[in-house]
Amino acid sequence: MKIAIVGAGNVGGTLGRGWAQQGHEIIFGVRDAKDEKIKRVLASAGMKAHATSIAEAAATAEIVVLSVPWPAEGAVKSCGNLTGKILVDCTNPLKPDLSGLALGQNTSAAEQIANLAKDARVVKAFNTTGAGNMSNPKFGAQNASMFICGDDGNAKATVGKLAEELGFEAVDVGPLVAARYLEPLAMLWIHLALKMGWGTNFAFKILKR
Amino acid sequence: MKIAIVGAGNVGGTLGRGWAQQGHEIIFGVRDAKDEKIKRVLASAGMKAHATSIAEAAATAEIVVLSVPWPAEGAVKSCGNLTGKILVDCTNPLKPDLSGLALGQNTSAAEQIANLAKDARVVKAFNTTGAGNMSNPKFGAQNASMFICGDDGNAKATVGKLAEELGFEAVDVGPLVAARYLEPLAMLWIHLALKMGWGTNFAFKILKR
Repeated sequence: MKIAIVGAGNVGGTLGRGWAQQGHEIIFGVRDAKDEKIKRVLASAGMKAHATSIAEAAATAEIVVLSVPWPAEGAVKSCGNLTGKILVDCTNPLKPDLSGLALGQNTSAAEQIANLAKDARVVKAFNTTGAGNMSNPKFGAQNASMFICGDDGNAKATVGKLAEELGFEAVDVGPLVAARYLEPLAMLWIHLALKMGWGTNFAFKILKR
Repeated sequence: MKIAIVGAGNVGGTLGRGWAQQGHEIIFGVRDAKDEKIKRVLASAGMKAHATSIAEAAATAEIVVLSVPWPAEGAVKSCGNLTGKILVDCTNPLKPDLSGLALGQNTSAAEQIANLAKDARVVKAFNTTGAGNMSNPKFGAQNASMFICGDDGNAKATVGKLAEELGFEAVDVGPLVAARYLEPLAMLWIHLALKMGWGTNFAFKILKR
């Protein structure tokens, strides 16, 4: 396939290299095709990759992969007419300091509960999987992850131990505000289980190496 | 430990049973301790579990586990004074039709991009892990999951195949609006990698059985 990659940073460069190795034709759409960094990405991606303007790359390809920093509006507009083309959105609307998403999110149940129970040490946990997995978190030789966040380290350690007693791998994901990531993760589980028809015999796991 | 569980539904009941088996003392805090459903949960949880009012359960225990449907405000208020206690928040602020979260979320980058590129077939993908994992998504014998959503089935199938060519397990999570779950998942990855100091050698995986 002819694949346009808008943006030649870490993600775009890596995807382009990977797909070039599979025999696809890669056209990077960039602001300056003569940039030294672009040349290095092209050299690493091999013969089937080249760089041109965003407009030309998008016009030539069947698939356009958007891998630019947020906001992506300028890059999308530069693509021109995308009628019927597949536009792969790899972006994340990050705040510049990586403290959260710049759009779509503004609070969490955990923060509201902490506000209601100001003197308690609130820990978010046991919300990202179903009750069936809580009675058996084993998937073959693997233990599902239980994500935990909160602002009190001792409280989190206690809750983490309670999660391990049930058979989970406890994963401390930081302060209570990280519930803004765990509640959508829970929603993903519920959505897959109930809306996508998966049923409840699946769970999230962190793979490490 | 003495653990109060506010709510004796699927999640609360399962957690209570699990911890009772580990020797903890479980006190369910419920509206009506004589309810037939509560009696069944108690019978299944064994000798170390009993039920009382929310206020009494919370007053007695060192840890209070909040496992009630959203909104949880009434249940939190019924707990009374929680000073210094660990309050485990298992809630999710679900919309009644499970179509999303009732708070904290209102849009996603993917939806904004689809709005900018109205004639394109937008697919959200390659946003939930780092570039390093995109060049090598293998973790021992396991392939990391690549979550994909979009409103055009053919476009998703094509992008799913491109993800598999890189070595991912492609996971179709439904319509483009599910990007509201994938972008916070990406933010969780970034938060763990950069703010929590994990580095980039980890990825998310769906476990199934």
